[in-house]
Amino acid sequence: MNISQLQKARSAYQPKVPASIEGATKLSEGKATQSVADQDDIKKLFPNTYGMPIVTFEKGSSDANVEAFNVGIILSGGQAPGGHNVISGIFDGIKRLNKDSKLYGFLGGPSGLVDHKYIELTSDIIDEYRNTGGFDIIGSGRTKLEEVEQFDKGLEICKKLNIKAIIIIGGDDSNTNACVLAEYYLAKKTGVQVIGCPKTIDGDLKNEMIETSFGFDTATKVYSEVIGNIERDANSAKKYWHFIKLMGRSASHVTLECALQTQPNVTLIGEEVEAKNQSLDDVVTYIAEAVAARAAKGLNFGTVLVPEGLIEFIPAIKKLIAELNDMLAANQAEFDKVADDKKIEYVANHLSAANAAIFNSLPAGVSRQLALERDPHGNVQVSLIETEQLLADMVAKKLAEWKKEGKFAGKFATQHHFFGYEGRCAAPSNFDADYCYSLGRVAALLIASGKTGYMSSVRNTTKPAAEWLAGGIPITAMMNMEKRNGKMKPVIQKALVKLDGGPFKYFASKRAEWAIETAFVYPGPIQYFGPSEVCDQPTKTLTLEH
Amino acid sequence: MNISQLQKARSAYQPKVPASIEGATKLSEGKATQSVADQDDIKKLFPNTYGMPIVTFEKGSSDANVEAFNVGIILSGGQAPGGHNVISGIFDGIKRLNKDSKLYGFLGGPSGLVDHKYIELTSDIIDEYRNTGGFDIIGSGRTKLEEVEQFDKGLEICKKLNIKAIIIIGGDDSNTNACVLAEYYLAKKTGVQVIGCPKTIDGDLKNEMIETSFGFDTATKVYSEVIGNIERDANSAKKYWHFIKLMGRSASHVTLECALQTQPNVTLIGEEVEAKNQSLDDVVTYIAEAVAARAAKGLNFGTVLVPEGLIEFIPAIKKLIAELNDMLAANQAEFDKVADDKKIEYVANHLSAANAAIFNSLPAGVSRQLALERDPHGNVQVSLIETEQLLADMVAKKLAEWKKEGKFAGKFATQHHFFGYEGRCAAPSNFDADYCYSLGRVAALLIASGKTGYMSSVRNTTKPAAEWLAGGIPITAMMNMEKRNGKMKPVIQKALVKLDGGPFKYFASKRAEWAIETAFVYPGPIQYFGPSEVCDQPTKTLTLEH
Repeated sequence: MNISQLQKARSAYQPKVPASIEGATKLSEGKATQSVADQDDIKKLFPNTYGMPIVTFEKGSSDANVEAFNVGIILSGGQAPGGHNVISGIFDGIKRLNKDSKLYGFLGGPSGLVDHKYIELTSDIIDEYRNTGGFDIIGSGRTKLEEVEQFDKGLEICKKLNIKAIIIIGGDDSNTNACVLAEYYLAKKTGVQVIGCPKTIDGDLKNEMIETSFGFDTATKVYSEVIGNIERDANSAKKYWHFIKLMGRSASHVTLECALQTQPNVTLIGEEVEAKNQSLDDVVTYIAEAVAARAAKGLNFGTVLVPEGLIEFIPAIKKLIAELNDMLAANQAEFDKVADDKKIEYVANHLSAANAAIFNSLPAGVSRQLALERDPHGNVQVSLIETEQLLADMVAKKLAEWKKEGKFAGKFATQHHFFGYEGRCAAPSNFDADYCYSLGRVAALLIASGKTGYMSSVRNTTKPAAEWLAGGIPITAMMNMEKRNGKMKPVIQKALVKLDGGPFKYFASKRAEWAIETAFVYPGPIQYFGPSEVCDQPTKTLTLEH
Repeated sequence: MNISQLQKARSAYQPKVPASIEGATKLSEGKATQSVADQDDIKKLFPNTYGMPIVTFEKGSSDANVEAFNVGIILSGGQAPGGHNVISGIFDGIKRLNKDSKLYGFLGGPSGLVDHKYIELTSDIIDEYRNTGGFDIIGSGRTKLEEVEQFDKGLEICKKLNIKAIIIIGGDDSNTNACVLAEYYLAKKTGVQVIGCPKTIDGDLKNEMIETSFGFDTATKVYSEVIGNIERDANSAKKYWHFIKLMGRSASHVTLECALQTQPNVTLIGEEVEAKNQSLDDVVTYIAEAVAARAAKGLNFGTVLVPEGLIEFIPAIKKLIAELNDMLAANQAEFDKVADDKKIEYVANHLSAANAAIFNSLPAGVSRQLALERDPHGNVQVSLIETEQLLADMVAKKLAEWKKEGKFAGKFATQHHFFGYEGRCAAPSNFDADYCYSLGRVAALLIASGKTGYMSSVRNTTKPAAEWLAGGIPITAMMNMEKRNGKMKPVIQKALVKLDGGPFKYFASKRAEWAIETAFVYPGPIQYFGPSEVCDQPTKTLTLEH
C-alpha cells in the first residue's frame, strides 16, 4: 500500500492520556444522577439504568487482576476525525488489562451487529490505522438500533463471540440507542454491557461531563484553514464576496467556531436567527448592509459564513416546510398527476395564505426545488437547497434595488463554497488524537468496572492532557423527552449554540468590528510537529466555555 | 492585529537559498540564446533584448562595491503562494548589496506603475509578511502593460523615485509584457531595467531554465490535502462518487499533480482529451465505465478529478464556442431583440449543421448558459459552466441507460466540489518559501549585474536548496509567435502537459489500477516543522520531470 510521508511519520505518534489512567486506576463513584428533564418519564423507561452515579477514575495502587474479556465495537453515523484512535485506545486499554482480551469490529455500522458481520481487530490492523482519519477500518452506517428483534440478533453474536460489552461510537441519537440497548440487556440479565462514545463534528453532543464531541476540533480546523486562505485571497484580489456554507444542519457550532478562528465579515448563526424570529429577508438585509457599509469604505470584498441548516432555523420557512410536508402527504395521489410545470402553482394554491405568501416570495429555483424534489419518505429536501448561492443571489437583488435608490454605490461579485466532506475524515489533530485515544482507554476501564449505559467521559480538556479527568456519565442523565415522528421519545438533549454562552457572547461583542474592518485571521493548516502553542490548542469554543 | 499562532511561529522561518548566492557572487555568462521558435520574428521585435546569454551566479571571492539602487515591484495577475517571499528576497537582496537601497511596491498590480500609486516597503512592513500567503502586501491586478503611453507613464515615476529596475512578478503573459517593457526602455536608453519572476499556480510557465512556477507546489498540496480527506470519506461512507474540479483553464498540470499525490479513480487531463479528439460523450463514457467496473466489485463510490478547462479542450466544443462567439458578434443587434425563451432556438438555427448538432446535444442548463450569459466583451462564458456537475449529471444519465440494458447494476450518488480559491493564498510550503525567497535574491543580483529582459531562474530544485543553481534567462529565449485576438503576437510559449513527459507517463501507467482498486493516498496538510521527508518534498511533477 502506498501511504503518504505524513501518514508514515504520524503513525509513530503516541497519543497523550490523563495521568490518572496511565497506570493502575481505582474507581470513585459520585452521587446518584437525574435526567436533565422529564425525570419521571425517563426513569420509567429506564428502570435499570436510571439514576446511576457519575464515576471517576483516579490513580490506583496496583492493577486489579482482570480476566480476559472480549469487546465489540460499532461506528455509527457520519465520519469524524479520530474514530480510529478511539478504537486503538480501546484495543490498548483491554490488552493492558489482560493481553488475552479480544476486540471485534462490527462492519458497516450498527447493521453489522444485527447481521453478524464482523472482523477481529488484531494489532496488525490496529497499527495500520493509528492516528489516521476516516472510519474505513470497519466502516460506518446509519441503521438505527431501535427494535427488540435487532437487540436479540445482536445478543446472539455476542454470546457466540463471548463478547462482554459493546461500545457504540456515535452522535446523540446513536448514544440514545446505546442506552436503550444497555437497558434491554440489563433487564434481560444477558450480562452484555453497552458503553457509548461521543462522536460528531457538529459539536452538538456536549454537556457538563462531555465537554466536546470528538472530531469537532479537527474538522473546524480544516474548514478554518481553507476559510482563512479564501479570506487572504479576498483581501488580495479585492473583488469578490465569498459565501461559504459549512456542514451542520441542527446546530451552528461549526460555523461559530470557524468564525472565532477566522474573523469573517458576516457570520450567520441559526440559533440566533430562530430566537430573533428573523425572516429570510431579514437575513438578506443584514448581509446587504454589511456589503454596503464596506463598499462605502471602498472595500468591495468580504466573506460570509453560513451554517448548512440556516434555512431550517428561519421560523417562517420552518412552518412552510412543515405545512408543505403535511399537505403533500395528504394530497399525494392528486399531486402526482399534476404536470411538472403546474406543480408550483398547485402547491401555492394548496397552502395556507401565510405560507403561500412565503412560498411565492422565494426565488424560482428554490420554490421549484421544494415543490418537485422529495426524498424517499415524501419529504421536501431542504438539504438540497444551495443556501450559500441563494443568499448571494438575494443579496445581489437587494443591492441592485439599493443602487437605484442611491443607497449603494459599490460593486458586488460573488463566489460560493461548501465545506463538509473536506474535514470529516481528516487525520485527527493532536487534540483529537489524544482525546479520542483517551476516550477509548476510559471505555475499556468502564467495561472492566462492570458499567453499562455509560458514556466515556474525558474532561478538563482545555488543560494539558496529563491533567484531564477520566470517568463515565450515565447516558440517562443527559436525556429528556422530545417529539420524533409524532411520538414522544427519550433522547439525549441536543446542545445548540447558547446565545448567553461564552463563545457566542465573544463573537457578538466583536462582529460589528469584523463586519466593517478587514480583521481576517489566517489559521493555516493543522500542524503535528511544531511548537505546542501551534499544535496543541483546543478549539476557541472550548476555551471560551471553560 | 490578531494573527494566528501558526503565522506567529512561521514568521521566524529563515528561507533556505542556494549556497552559491549565500555570500559574494560572480556572474558567469553562457552562450547566446535563441527563441524556442519563430526566431526571425522574435529577433525583429526585440532587437535589443534578443539573443542574450543565459547567466549563472557562482560563489565569488568578495562582494563588489555596489552603489545604493532603488527597485520597484509589481504583482501581476492571480494570487500564488510565496509572492510575499519573492518580495522579502528582493528586499534582503538589495539591502545586502547596499543598505541604502530602497524598495518600492506599486499598488494593485501593473496599474500602480501607470497611475503612480506606490508605497515604500520598509523592513517593518516586510517583516510582517515574511512566509505568509496572499498578495495583500501591495495587492495585485490584471491591467496589461502593452501600450507605449503606459510605458512612458511608468518611466516618469521611475525617474521621480530614481528607480533603477522594475521587477514584474507574474505569469506567462505578464512576463511577455515585462520583456516588451525591457525592450522599450532599452531602446529608449532610459537606463531602467526590467526583470521577471515566474509566478502561477497553474504550473504552465516552465521550461529547461524555469523548472516550475512558484505557488504550484503549495496550491497543489492544499488541494491534495482536501482531495485526500474526501477520498478517505468516500472510502469510509462508501456511498458517493465525488466529482472534484480543480483550478486551471489553459493547462491540466494542477489536476495531474493532485492525481499523482492522491491516486483517485478517474482523472481527466485536458491535453489528452484534445490530442485524442474526444467528444463530451467519450469523456462521459470513460467515467461511466469506471463507475460500472467498480460497481461490479461492489464499490459504489469513488473520486473523479476534472480540470477547470476541460470543456475548452474538447475539440468539438472548442469549435462550437468559436463559431458561437463569431455568430453572436455578427448578429448582436438582432440577437439582443430575441426574447429570452427563444434565444436557444435562435442560436441553434444560426449555427452550422455540425455545431448545431453539438449544441443541441448539450444538457439544457449548459446550452442555456452558452446562449444567454456573455461577458462584457460579448464572449460566451465557458468558465461559468459547472463542469463537475455537468459530468456527474451526464454520467448518471448514461448509467441509467446502461441499467435498462443490464450493463450496470450498481448505485450512483454524487457530490461535487471545486477547489481554486482555497489554495491560491495559502501560506507557502517550505519549498515555495525557499524557492520564492531565492528567486527574489537572484532578481536583486540580476539588477546589480545590469541585466534587463531576464527572468530570475533557480534550478536543480529536486535537490536540497543548498545545491540549487541560481541565474537568469533572457525572456526572449522562451518566446514564439501566437495568434491573440486575431493578430500574431510574440508570447512566452505556454507549457502544457506533455503526453510523453514523465509525470503523464507515470500516471498513464497506473490509472487502470487506480480506477478499479481503491488506491487512495491521503497526503494530509502541509507541515512546516516536522521531519524533512514530510516538510521539504518538491511536487511529484518536478520529481518525475528531473
